[in-house]
Amino acid sequence: MLKPGESVKKIVVIGGGTGNFSVLRGLKNYPVDLSAVVSMADDGGSTGILRDELGVLPPGDVRQCLVALSNSSSMMRSLMNYRFEQGGLGGHSFGNLFLSALEKVTGSFEKAVEEVGKILAIKGKVIPVTIHQVRLRMILTNHKVLEGEKEVYLSREIDQGYKSIFLEPYAQANPHAIHEIMHSDLIVLGPGGLHTSLIPNLLVEGVSEALRKSRAKKVFVVNLMNRKGQTTGFTVSSYLKELVQFIGSDIFDYIIVNNQSPSEELIERYAEEGELILNDLRDDQRVITALLLGEVKEGVKGDLMKRSLIRHDPKKLAQELMKIVSYL
Amino acid sequence: MLKPGESVKKIVVIGGGTGNFSVLRGLKNYPVDLSAVVSMADDGGSTGILRDELGVLPPGDVRQCLVALSNSSSMMRSLMNYRFEQGGLGGHSFGNLFLSALEKVTGSFEKAVEEVGKILAIKGKVIPVTIHQVRLRMILTNHKVLEGEKEVYLSREIDQGYKSIFLEPYAQANPHAIHEIMHSDLIVLGPGGLHTSLIPNLLVEGVSEALRKSRAKKVFVVNLMNRKGQTTGFTVSSYLKELVQFIGSDIFDYIIVNNQSPSEELIERYAEEGELILNDLRDDQRVITALLLGEVKEGVKGDLMKRSLIRHDPKKLAQELMKIVSYL
Repeated sequence: MLKPGESVKKIVVIGGGTGNFSVLRGLKNYPVDLSAVVSMADDGGSTGILRDELGVLPPGDVRQCLVALSNSSSMMRSLMNYRFEQGGLGGHSFGNLFLSALEKVTGSFEKAVEEVGKILAIKGKVIPVTIHQVRLRMILTNHKVLEGEKEVYLSREIDQGYKSIFLEPYAQANPHAIHEIMHSDLIVLGPGGLHTSLIPNLLVEGVSEALRKSRAKKVFVVNLMNRKGQTTGFTVSSYLKELVQFIGSDIFDYIIVNNQSPSEELIERYAEEGELILNDLRDDQRVITALLLGEVKEGVKGDLMKRSLIRHDPKKLAQELMKIVSYL
Repeated sequence: MLKPGESVKKIVVIGGGTGNFSVLRGLKNYPVDLSAVVSMADDGGSTGILRDELGVLPPGDVRQCLVALSNSSSMMRSLMNYRFEQGGLGGHSFGNLFLSALEKVTGSFEKAVEEVGKILAIKGKVIPVTIHQVRLRMILTNHKVLEGEKEVYLSREIDQGYKSIFLEPYAQANPHAIHEIMHSDLIVLGPGGLHTSLIPNLLVEGVSEALRKSRAKKVFVVNLMNRKGQTTGFTVSSYLKELVQFIGSDIFDYIIVNNQSPSEELIERYAEEGELILNDLRDDQRVITALLLGEVKEGVKGDLMKRSLIRHDPKKLAQELMKIVSYL
């Protein structure tokens, strides 16, 4: 609860996909002013088909953030994540269709996001990092070119080194995203796919500069697991180093690292996907370690939680973030 | 406006498709308690694909009624009628997908209709005449069998005579539909396709009986045009006679007939579709004639008004209906 005279703190969460979901879902229950700045590089699955067939902006990550912030009934949240199973509609999530149809009707993706936000009674705002059509491209050291986020996500040789990663065409930031970053008290980057969710935000022109200039405190929430063939062998400092390269300066005031070990059985089941991230920054004063694992519930509805058996617990993560907020 | 002491009158509109839309859209602006009882035999276009691929109940006619009764923004109404143009989604109206996804999520078509009704801020209620999966079947005098409403709609030889028309399987009425019919002050049947929208409601077990028993006044709103190959040469009394056959008694207290002639040019353009309906009941005391044609606006958004260039004006039709209400 806020004490009299205290002002509500503004928190901006930057990412895309499942990582964003955990942070937003957790923070939603606190008296803070929340904004989600969302990567627009997604081009896989239902989102990819909609981009190709309708020429719309990618709805998938935005939909997940809207659901995370929703105060509407569980029925409405299930509806947004509902996937059609058969026929020509097969694989499409209803929420993606909702955003894409509204973009077509209103002529504006941001307007569509706003309207779905109203229907879902969301707390806070969801803001596309750019409103230009962009594709992620990555050129590996072996000269292979990965076209699109989906190819980057599926690649198992990024850990062999890459020469460059960029958006095509080069895109300017959504002014609303820059405004949020510049006027926030706390900025949370991560967790999320390093090359598929985090860096694609930093590649948008103006975002890194705003991050450097913003007087907000900055937190990096480190992932739980490395992704095989992508960040194999990465330690906490490897993640930090790569991000700092794109941001242009080490802006982080806090680094949140999980130190709870999953069961042996889970680690084994996960081995095909990747391994635990080693914390090599134990002496760094900025590092906050905590027990952050979520309970594994198999067969959870919706498509978010199924993807990662080892995941952050939204409540525990939010508790650590709110401790930081209490110092602001 | 209601005078002090007057109670709000309950009006039930029975039909499906474009005809229902005109009546509901017109009555929506009056202080009445409105319900739409909607045919569930549609199996063409987007609705047909959803029935076949997802096994859902037909959303199309229900969607049109929801839009007619909506008090939400024109944007939301456009969204509901928005049709995807390309790819696997091509031809689907967003509103149909909305109802079908909600039916899948909630397990109940009625619940889905209720929820979309809330989002569209509808005035009144939209009630499926049955919640069983039914198909319309028609056996013509020449022994040809028409399978489904779409085939009936497209047939050009129904006017050569038919032996029977029925729903398969034989289906009981939705108790909510019967309740509305039994507790209404005025029941409006039509306008709408005789074999595709009106009779399919009467074929549902319990509907005709409720119509005979209900103490409401009953109005038949006659179509403007005959449909070629279906009702070629039909007069007002032909329509009445065929309906009465299915209802089991001539229940009508009023028969509303248009006596405004469309321009020669419009009649010519419409000749492929059908011809004007002759009023052979001029001496029947129940017949109310009025100028009921809507102005033709070409290129009107949404898919409803495009279909019929010669159509009822919702305002004029509602004025005639409200005159009847004022006598109740």
